[in-house]
Amino acid sequence: MQINSYIAQAIIDGAEVKAREVGLPVIVAVLDAGGHLKAFHRMDGAVLGSIDIALRKAKTAVLFGAESEAVWEYCKPGAPAPGLENTNGGLAPFGGGIPLKDRDGSILGALGVSGGSVAQDMEVARAGYAAYQATVA
Amino acid sequence: MQINSYIAQAIIDGAEVKAREVGLPVIVAVLDAGGHLKAFHRMDGAVLGSIDIALRKAKTAVLFGAESEAVWEYCKPGAPAPGLENTNGGLAPFGGGIPLKDRDGSILGALGVSGGSVAQDMEVARAGYAAYQATVA
Amino acid sequence: MQINSYIAQAIIDGAEVKAREVGLPVIVAVLDAGGHLKAFHRMDGAVLGSIDIALRKAKTAVLFGAESEAVWEYCKPGAPAPGLENTNGGLAPFGGGIPLKDRDGSILGALGVSGGSVAQDMEVARAGYAAYQATVA
Amino acid sequence: MQINSYIAQAIIDGAEVKAREVGLPVIVAVLDAGGHLKAFHRMDGAVLGSIDIALRKAKTAVLFGAESEAVWEYCKPGAPAPGLENTNGGLAPFGGGIPLKDRDGSILGALGVSGGSVAQDMEVARAGYAAYQATVA
Repeated sequence: MQINSYIAQAIIDGAEVKAREVGLPVIVAVLDAGGHLKAFHRMDGAVLGSIDIALRKAKTAVLFGAESEAVWEYCKPGAPAPGLENTNGGLAPFGGGIPLKDRDGSILGALGVSGGSVAQDMEVARAGYAAYQATVA
Repeated sequence: MQINSYIAQAIIDGAEVKAREVGLPVIVAVLDAGGHLKAFHRMDGAVLGSIDIALRKAKTAVLFGAESEAVWEYCKPGAPAPGLENTNGGLAPFGGGIPLKDRDGSILGALGVSGGSVAQDMEVARAGYAAYQATVA
Repeated sequence: MQINSYIAQAIIDGAEVKAREVGLPVIVAVLDAGGHLKAFHRMDGAVLGSIDIALRKAKTAVLFGAESEAVWEYCKPGAPAPGLENTNGGLAPFGGGIPLKDRDGSILGALGVSGGSVAQDMEVARAGYAAYQATVA
Repeated sequence: MQINSYIAQAIIDGAEVKAREVGLPVIVAVLDAGGHLKAFHRMDGAVLGSIDIALRKAKTAVLFGAESEAVWEYCKPGAPAPGLENTNGGLAPFGGGIPLKDRDGSILGALGVSGGSVAQDMEVARAGYAAYQATVA
């Protein structure tokens, strides 16, 4: 299975429905299994600095097949991989990136959300992920 | 005026209607007046190499307020600005990028299309531009 | 509204009047809404290392629509976005960058000041911002 | 002697007087002997792509102590240094960058102009250089 346009749009729509509920303009990026950009949308009013962050969160999630904040557990002070966050052109090891997997656990891509606080971004990203699950179910 | 989500989506839709007519999966990127990504869509089947090209064509168009291929007139062999294509992090001085202007000529953004031959990309880009004009008229 | 040359010069002049009062040679950078350089001046005697810092502070402010030091609240030790300061090509999450907004809160650009201590840079930046307000009032 | 603020402003003013005569909004950058930015101004209406070009022309001129277009003689097809234009982070080997020298020929800095055709940029740059000469005479 691949992240096709239909799925990517469903993810963006699902995230943005939640973003409007929260009242927060966000950026949503969807990457494929190779980490290449499939779809991207910046809601009107989202800050420019979040473009790079949304892309990087999604990249972090697809590169490790894990939610972006999980990377921090490996590189935070005292953890065994200091500087891990500087590999791969720079990761974003905080919440808002979620990997997209199929039923056997293969990594199909990732989504990344940025625009508000980390907690808000994670809430919006989870809504995008729920839309993904509803679409591929 | 700014390139809002409504306009950006109209541009992508207009380009993709034409791309399906032509039978060519393409990538469409829409940038704002500052050259920042507003919306992006890669149709299923478009080649990965076109991601960077679509983005760069749009960047070329917004940076100079001209269609991307116009830049080549300044830097082609014998022209007075050799190496111009290497400025600004690397331009794409060939067809497929079109600036978006308002009625007084201010640059509001640009669209970039890549996926097929330059002639095909230009045809698809012009369809995206026509949709822009229909939306802001 | 845009940050035109008249406004940019007023900002630089306002900052430098204060800098001379303080006896501190500084660098002042003014960016537009897209984060592109509009005007820049390095006072005689300002250290070279402050060129990049003034530019980065202004970039930080325009990208997030917030004073540059506000970014640190999100990425300081224990905060939820570790590594945020490494996004967008590297931010300067300390004082001296101030966003320029219009009355409805739209981000029109930013100014960045560097040359002395953070407290001094912030004082000079605030003088530049006061000149901005006096000009657009 | 150094390129102080008084001289840098005289150069920018001299160039912009000519640019207004020509009816062309340009960008003027002034670098010091180390190639570091001393002053920069983007006239209202100048295209964004010219920011990088003006800076690069000035850098090219100061790095080689020669007008920026002179570099092309060394790297044009058939010349002995192909690829020279790709050194130093990328040069701009076309007209619009002029080195600033003192009477014994020491390189004190450079100015770079971009915004129009190469011929126009060179005319504006020469006006900036004339202002330099009038100031240090």
